This record gives sequence, C-alpha cells and structure tokens, in this order.
Amino acid sequence: MRLAMVRMGGVPRPVRVDAAGRRFWPIEGLPQDMAGLIAALSGGATLPEPSGEGEVLEEAMLLAPLPNPPRNLFCVGKNYHAHAKEFAGSGYDSSSTGAADAIPKAPIIFTKPFTTISGPWDDIPLVPGLDAEVDYEAELAVVIGRGGRAIPRSRAMSHVFGYTVVNDVTARDLQGVHKQWLLGKGIDGFCPMGPWIVTADELDAAAMRVSCTVNGEARQDAVTADLIFDIPTLIETISLSMALLPGDVIATGTPEGVGIGFKPPRFLRDGDVVECAIEGIGRIRNTVRKVEAAALRGAA
Amino acid sequence: MRLAMVRMGGVPRPVRVDAAGRRFWPIEGLPQDMAGLIAALSGGATLPEPSGEGEVLEEAMLLAPLPNPPRNLFCVGKNYHAHAKEFAGSGYDSSSTGAADAIPKAPIIFTKPFTTISGPWDDIPLVPGLDAEVDYEAELAVVIGRGGRAIPRSRAMSHVFGYTVVNDVTARDLQGVHKQWLLGKGIDGFCPMGPWIVTADELDAAAMRVSCTVNGEARQDAVTADLIFDIPTLIETISLSMALLPGDVIATGTPEGVGIGFKPPRFLRDGDVVECAIEGIGRIRNTVRKVEAAALRGAA
Repeated sequence: MRLAMVRMGGVPRPVRVDAAGRRFWPIEGLPQDMAGLIAALSGGATLPEPSGEGEVLEEAMLLAPLPNPPRNLFCVGKNYHAHAKEFAGSGYDSSSTGAADAIPKAPIIFTKPFTTISGPWDDIPLVPGLDAEVDYEAELAVVIGRGGRAIPRSRAMSHVFGYTVVNDVTARDLQGVHKQWLLGKGIDGFCPMGPWIVTADELDAAAMRVSCTVNGEARQDAVTADLIFDIPTLIETISLSMALLPGDVIATGTPEGVGIGFKPPRFLRDGDVVECAIEGIGRIRNTVRKVEAAALRGAA
Repeated sequence: MRLAMVRMGGVPRPVRVDAAGRRFWPIEGLPQDMAGLIAALSGGATLPEPSGEGEVLEEAMLLAPLPNPPRNLFCVGKNYHAHAKEFAGSGYDSSSTGAADAIPKAPIIFTKPFTTISGPWDDIPLVPGLDAEVDYEAELAVVIGRGGRAIPRSRAMSHVFGYTVVNDVTARDLQGVHKQWLLGKGIDGFCPMGPWIVTADELDAAAMRVSCTVNGEARQDAVTADLIFDIPTLIETISLSMALLPGDVIATGTPEGVGIGFKPPRFLRDGDVVECAIEGIGRIRNTVRKVEAAALRGAA
C-alpha cells in the first residue's frame, strides 16, 4: 500500500495511491495528519479497500508524505562502508581522526528537525552564508509504526510501518565547523521527502537499491544490503535510549558518491537538479535554487 | 512573571506563580499547552493581572513547565571555558582531539527529544545497559518567544521569552561511542526541567549563577558571563540555519564540575540526589533511581 499527502483544494489530505502511482483515494474517517494516521493504523485501525476509480494523481499535487513526525528525524551517519571511507578522507568528518576509525563501531545518530522537510519536487534553498558547500545524500527512510522501548533485533521489523525516500541535504562547511551535525543538516528545506510511503509488507528492506543523479549524471548507486548497521540494529540501538513513537523516521544513511567524495568536491549550485530514487518506492526530484537574503529576513 | 504547569485534578494546566513561589492563578482563555501559550503571548495576547488570592502552590503539583516544545531542544556543548577543558581532557569528547581544539571555535549544537523532559522533582532513571556512566549537567535554558530566521545578535534578545533550569543528564559511555551525542543525551527522562519559566524582563541573562549539588555536595558553580558563546550568538547562529519557533528551547551548556571532570570520574548512582539551581529562577531536585529491565520492556 502507498500512502501520500496531496493538496486538494488547498488543503493537505492523506490519500491511498495505486501501485502505478496514477490514481488516488482520499482517506476518510481516520486522522488527517500522517503521523496520526500511522498511529491509528499501527494501533489496529484498518483502511477500507479503495472503491471506485479514484481520482487522477497529478505529480504536482504530491506533498511530503510525513511532514509532522513526533520529533526530529533520526539520521544515521556513515552507514555504508564505501561512503564511510570517502567521508573520513574528505577532511569534513568531525567523527573520525583518520583511516583507523573511518568505519564506525557503533551507529552515529543525529537529527534533522521537521522544519527541514519539504515536498518531493520542492526546491532546495541555497541561502546566503549557507550556500558554499551544499551536498546531497540519497537515503532510505524507515517510518516507525508501533512504538516501543528496548526493542530487540529479532522483533524490530514488526515496528516498521513503511519506507520513503529522503535527501539528507547537508551544508558540509557547517557540518565540519560545528562538530555536532545539527546546524549543517538542519537547515530549513534540507530534507526533501517522498513521493509517498510504501508499507513494509511490499518491500524487502535489506535489498533495496538507492541511487542519486545530479543533472542526470549518476552519482550514488548502492543496495541496502551494504548497510553497516542494518535496520533491526538501528531500531534496537535507538529504542534502548528512548521509546520509539508511531511516525518516527529513521533515515538510514547515504551510499558512496556524495559531492565531497570527489576531488575537488562537487557541491550543488544554483539550478542543479538532484534526483533520489529507491527501487520499489519511487523518486524525488529537487532543483537547487538561490534564495535572496531579503527573502530570508522576511521570514523573521 | 513566572509561568508553570501544575497538575490540577489530574490535568496539566498553565498557571501564573507569584514571586515567592507560594501561590498561583490558573490561566484562562488562552492555549492550555505551554508552547501554544508562549506563541499566543509572543504574538500579542496579554495575560490579565492575577486577581484574588490565588491558590496555594504545593511543590508536588509542579510539572515540567514546557513539556511540548515544537521540536527537539537545542543544546550547546562545551560552552564554558573551564568545562570545555575538563571535557576535552576526560577521554569522552568525540568533538576534540586534544588540548589544541579543546575550546570550540563555533557553537556545538546537538538535540534532546521532548521525550527526555521530566518534571522538576521526577526521578532520573538508571536503565539497565545505560546506567554505568550517567552524569549531570546543570544548565540555563532559554525559551524562545517570537520566532524568526537570520536573527542578528543585536536583535536576538527580543526573541527571548524567558528562562528555566534544566539538567542535561548524559550517559557518557553512549555519548563517546556513538560520536554524535543524541543517544547519550536523548534517553527518556534525561532532561528534568523547571520549576517554572521566568520571563526575560525579570532577569539579566548575562549574569546568572548556575550551580549543582549532588547529595548536598557542591559540584558546579559558575555565572553565565563565562559562556564562550553568549545567548545572542547562539540565537544568531541557530537561526541562520533555521527559523526559530515560539517555544523552542536552547540549553546553553554546562559549567565545570561534571562527574567526568573528577579523576576517577564520579558517576551518578542509585539514590543520589541532584539539585540544579539558577539564581533568580529557582531549583530542581531529582533522585537517581534504578529501573528494572522488565519495566522497560513493559513500555514497549
């Protein structure tokens, strides 16, 4: 099953989308925010089978499928071997002092606030002062269904509601200078998400292909089988510290091929088009756009 | 003005507390959650002057004053000179490689989820597997009123609604092994807060005394004048990455004297009583309590 948020008459509505991504059915009689809907469905509520032909889904209607997780998204750093090495060798990695500790011994978990989340076709803002070293990171994001604390690996997958695609956009200069990664990762609009959530029953999370192109040029391409810390391990680790909640998101880390993996680095520039795709889910496509300083202050 | 959350007939209610902390007046006709109330007051709503004698405030009624900030609390690492040196020398500091970079050149910002927040007298849970190296950190927490993006230092203080006391309780082993600090800082119940919010007009944020005792023994005692990055700098820095929101919390960092500053380290043990105080605000007092593994799994 695919769940999306679409704009209908100016209002965001949760909908069920068909397998082809062509038609949709509004969800009635259940919470109209996605986090609440996930909590309801994970708590035993059921969705009726779609009846009738549904409505035609135009791509432009799609919003981020989960704009309101209950707290900051959990994100995993350096979770593919080849990427861990490219990042440790880039000079931007405050978590490592060299090749000896390039591969993490325990999951590196940081967060992005909900205010980073943007839609599957929204622009990635290049903000004055934050625009010098902006990089892409295509990632598989796990959406938690049933919550729980101290979840063992063996039961972890039963807590997964579904999956979506995110781009963990990062200002590398801020990520380095501030040591902890929040400010470089938490910039407003730096987490395009979508195009929908595919429920866990439809996918094999250990064998999904994650890829990214910039202006059509292949940059990232890997399978989730190569994760250093797999999804059950991430759920076990995070839920030891805190009870997971319905609607929590865990972005599982990005493969090799980010901009700072190149020498010299290839950062995102005004007008670049970044496309992140995961087989079995779909793709998001975001254009990098310069924002004027005045617009920024206007938001203050 | 002092704003608190108190339990009245089983329901949390926002109230106004007198300067002595002895009497209170329930707040009517405005949002009943503190984040919503702060947004309303910062947007122009006004509180009527308290009328009548109010009600007697019993200490046990007090809850965390802001249990539902709009996103994870912002926390500042290594923000007092003496503490930055003790932490860098402790062997637990993944942000530093030695004395040369012990003092940060830019604010180190990480987060704690709202699920860490507990009341001013709640127990600090010692959870199996997370109980070996638990440490205290008394901190001044800034509560944001009016939101905004790219706020310059010169206007930053006009965005401060008020202040409260937090204990940024930390599992040092997790903080070290996971490199990014979320898992060591984000444990459920690891952020006692209170006893209330004192509005900005009543305090000089640059001259507040922050102290901590464990079992009555002085451990931390410093003034906020010693902050490496002062409150206007923190607001300017964070709001460059993201618009601040009404009800956001910035815990400004802890002074010298944490448990890992001692050789050997003095970690918290079952039954220890930790008291964090800030002159002009008040104090919170929390007892460290072992939690059985079965209770933890019961939360799952």
